[in-house]
Amino acid sequence: MLRNITKQLSKTCIGAPTNYRFFSSESFDVAQKNLKKLSEEPDNSVKLQLYALFKQSTSGDVQGNRPGMMDFVGRAKYDAWKALAGKTKEQAQDDYAKLVNSLLSEDQKVAQSSSATLEGLKPVQGLEVTKEGKIFKITLNRPQKFNAITPDMYNGIKDALIASNADKTTSVTVLSANGAYFSAGNDLTNFKKAASGDPKIIKEMAEDAKILLKNFVDSFVTHEKPLIGLIQGPAVGISVTVLGMFDYILASDKATFHTPFAPLGQSPEGASSYTFPLIMGPLRASELLLVCKKITAAKAHEYGLVNEVVADSEFSATAAKIVEGFSTLPPESLRVNKTLLRHLHRENLLKTNEHECEVLAQRWQSKECHQAIAAFLTRSKK
Amino acid sequence: MLRNITKQLSKTCIGAPTNYRFFSSESFDVAQKNLKKLSEEPDNSVKLQLYALFKQSTSGDVQGNRPGMMDFVGRAKYDAWKALAGKTKEQAQDDYAKLVNSLLSEDQKVAQSSSATLEGLKPVQGLEVTKEGKIFKITLNRPQKFNAITPDMYNGIKDALIASNADKTTSVTVLSANGAYFSAGNDLTNFKKAASGDPKIIKEMAEDAKILLKNFVDSFVTHEKPLIGLIQGPAVGISVTVLGMFDYILASDKATFHTPFAPLGQSPEGASSYTFPLIMGPLRASELLLVCKKITAAKAHEYGLVNEVVADSEFSATAAKIVEGFSTLPPESLRVNKTLLRHLHRENLLKTNEHECEVLAQRWQSKECHQAIAAFLTRSKK
Amino acid sequence: MLRNITKQLSKTCIGAPTNYRFFSSESFDVAQKNLKKLSEEPDNSVKLQLYALFKQSTSGDVQGNRPGMMDFVGRAKYDAWKALAGKTKEQAQDDYAKLVNSLLSEDQKVAQSSSATLEGLKPVQGLEVTKEGKIFKITLNRPQKFNAITPDMYNGIKDALIASNADKTTSVTVLSANGAYFSAGNDLTNFKKAASGDPKIIKEMAEDAKILLKNFVDSFVTHEKPLIGLIQGPAVGISVTVLGMFDYILASDKATFHTPFAPLGQSPEGASSYTFPLIMGPLRASELLLVCKKITAAKAHEYGLVNEVVADSEFSATAAKIVEGFSTLPPESLRVNKTLLRHLHRENLLKTNEHECEVLAQRWQSKECHQAIAAFLTRSKK
Repeated sequence: MLRNITKQLSKTCIGAPTNYRFFSSESFDVAQKNLKKLSEEPDNSVKLQLYALFKQSTSGDVQGNRPGMMDFVGRAKYDAWKALAGKTKEQAQDDYAKLVNSLLSEDQKVAQSSSATLEGLKPVQGLEVTKEGKIFKITLNRPQKFNAITPDMYNGIKDALIASNADKTTSVTVLSANGAYFSAGNDLTNFKKAASGDPKIIKEMAEDAKILLKNFVDSFVTHEKPLIGLIQGPAVGISVTVLGMFDYILASDKATFHTPFAPLGQSPEGASSYTFPLIMGPLRASELLLVCKKITAAKAHEYGLVNEVVADSEFSATAAKIVEGFSTLPPESLRVNKTLLRHLHRENLLKTNEHECEVLAQRWQSKECHQAIAAFLTRSKK
Repeated sequence: MLRNITKQLSKTCIGAPTNYRFFSSESFDVAQKNLKKLSEEPDNSVKLQLYALFKQSTSGDVQGNRPGMMDFVGRAKYDAWKALAGKTKEQAQDDYAKLVNSLLSEDQKVAQSSSATLEGLKPVQGLEVTKEGKIFKITLNRPQKFNAITPDMYNGIKDALIASNADKTTSVTVLSANGAYFSAGNDLTNFKKAASGDPKIIKEMAEDAKILLKNFVDSFVTHEKPLIGLIQGPAVGISVTVLGMFDYILASDKATFHTPFAPLGQSPEGASSYTFPLIMGPLRASELLLVCKKITAAKAHEYGLVNEVVADSEFSATAAKIVEGFSTLPPESLRVNKTLLRHLHRENLLKTNEHECEVLAQRWQSKECHQAIAAFLTRSKK
Repeated sequence: MLRNITKQLSKTCIGAPTNYRFFSSESFDVAQKNLKKLSEEPDNSVKLQLYALFKQSTSGDVQGNRPGMMDFVGRAKYDAWKALAGKTKEQAQDDYAKLVNSLLSEDQKVAQSSSATLEGLKPVQGLEVTKEGKIFKITLNRPQKFNAITPDMYNGIKDALIASNADKTTSVTVLSANGAYFSAGNDLTNFKKAASGDPKIIKEMAEDAKILLKNFVDSFVTHEKPLIGLIQGPAVGISVTVLGMFDYILASDKATFHTPFAPLGQSPEGASSYTFPLIMGPLRASELLLVCKKITAAKAHEYGLVNEVVADSEFSATAAKIVEGFSTLPPESLRVNKTLLRHLHRENLLKTNEHECEVLAQRWQSKECHQAIAAFLTRSKK
């Protein structure tokens, strides 16, 4: 099912046939060629939009019946096309061209800001790693994808945390993000291979993802410097669950916290099944990890998941002050005391992480998960 | 001492002598016969009331001195009788008849609502077990006794939780209660045998109760579906202590939470010595489990013991919405995630339960406990 | 460095040369002699004040340049003297005499209130141990030093807790304090020996202090009666970290809670690296133990570190009511239930204490700690 979504969307949107040239404007033609230059495939929602505009541009209003309930992809495409009913072909071509241009311009911006990184660390698309005085900074820098975390970024963050451990010139590690979102969590396109439907391939993918995730989370458990989180906007999934291993978290009042595991047929990670009950008690932990409520920054503060909430306008100044405060404390004491505070939990955290990854690898291979993701992708198009 | 209370109250109230017939109204005579038809003995407080009305009906105002300090039962009876001083014999006979009639009518209601139950489950007086769509419902249904839990109900709840685990058609388990109280906790008449005063019999009773309790609490620890608690009124003792093993709790603003162990010479159970410090920290846990403060629903919410408090008038609607919300989530995910969240605590919970039951069995055999219960029963009559 | 501070301050302030007699008032002369009669050396801050007044009295305004950055002691003395610039010699002599007289009068008050203690317990300067009805009372009584805890007091409190365990006539233990402060924590003059700079001596001192601290904290872990803390004023360091092992804490709104470990190059003790995350979650625990924020009584209440906060004017009455409430509960139940509530944590607390003491002994031998303490002592003179 997943395979269908991805394949069909790709086929129809990206490699468009050319037998309509007669009716098309020049900018529309150029746009179709430019689409192929994008360094990264657009989101499914964008692809659907492109599909609909393309169809409206070339065939006008949608014809025929809406596909059946189980044809997720067919329905999504039909619905997107239908939403444009009444739009002229010229207008649709114009919109198509504009959309492609905006994608292209975003793409170039990303390419230009070739993520800054430190000597010895492999540069990673979507991640900045820098040092400023006593501060080791890791910054999520993939705002056009809401800082969704790719496999490269998982490894990049892990490597940065390990590098910070070894770095003697800095005394505190800061994780922040550029753009409106803190992070949309795991990039669901990471599951692309699963779309094949082949259980063997899915199993392989699940095993790979399990190892990727386990190492990522372990690098938080074994981090030795105070770890500060600066949450300027919505945080989702894995970007929420790891917060229990931070030492100080500042949130903007624009931040929200959401861990929609059950609706996606998945299960909690980031050692949250251990840290969340410790932070807020098991009943409140269930609200987030079982019922999957999205909570505000104020609620997260009440629950002890963040230390401080400030108005968005004061976020940067407060963040700078907090980080500065940490960096004036004796470095060795910071490291010793941070380690001491986590000492008793360390084994439990490592064990919990391993167990969570095992459970999640099973979930990824379950029908419930495949159906839930497919349903989610379809729903989100409406 | 306990033996005396029970025996003497039974003798004087239930099997009344007949040599006063001369003065008595017909309804009074009928009432005395009807009293013997009750399927369950009334509470001690009701028995005292019956005793006092009977004495007032037949002998008029109390005579003689108040019994000595250590004659708990004698004093209680004297005081109850004295409270009616001035009431005419006719009025007392009338009140007696009315009281018996109300007991009888309550008794019949209970008998008629032969508790609904599921195929394969033994029907239990005071407990309803039903299924509605995706919801497995366990309902305390002994409102005339404030849903105090009898040995049969302990086993009935345990069996229902186990049955829910095995049931594939439902995805969430709900525990609620009928009547004004959620539950008065352990039915103290469960200790009747202890009234013999014979250490051997008391030890036997303590051992039996220990096993009953251990299996009951274990069935919460090992429950695999999300467990929702709907607390519509006051909750006492064991009905509070098990709440730490629930996954979501809604409380009415009429609910209160009270665990009066120390004053009764007893000790906490329900794995609360583990879950309460985890939920609210050890200092707040002491307020409930050591100092035995009764707390409001608002306080319980502040302490993380309930997820949500609503006005009593909105209770049913909110409860329905919460349960509905759970039942729309993928069943397998719910089960996997609930189990995952409890995974690390499971061994600790089982060990804590075992230890608590051992300690409590010792307490039940202690003089302090016997004296405290006797004193409590006497006090509550004034 | 520490050696220098202590030695130089002692030399210049306490044993003053006599070649200025010509200019001095009689009361000034007497004051210099009286200074030697004090049973305990004054605080460094008082010594600096004495030094400055003495210099101003005999030499007038300070001359010459401010000593270099690394000469902590020289600078502190220079600054203190300079602060008096413009004051006449007569006025300075007068102030000197008044200051000595106030020290002397405080000293005598302390000597008179030879600390009350129980039979079988060694009397300890600065500590009262008494029994009142069902209450075993331990009172910090060194208000002139803000109830800073000396080695004798560490052992005295430990012995008192053990004695309370063994005492059958009391059912609850209360720890309170006389004066404005609850306690300034560890008396930093305990580190005097470290001032030698000799690594062998410092190591010895660290090992001794480690054992002293370990036994002290263990006596809280193994205490079997409910332990009530009455915090009437600021609490610092070890007097805050042990609070997680109390069963009920009342705080005045004048109380504050401060654990400045990192700035002093030290690390948390009192099993707080275990109890604080349990009480308030790891992120809030970091605010106190890592960032070393000083928090108010209201914040401590919000974080679950105290059970109740009252206005200072109502503190004594509320304290009496709380203690009375405990003492009416059945003693055996109190002991059994207190032990039960701590049962599962006991091993973890003992292990945590041992680990914390090891880490702290290492810290005491670190350069960072020595520099931080020296810098702190200098700073606090300004």
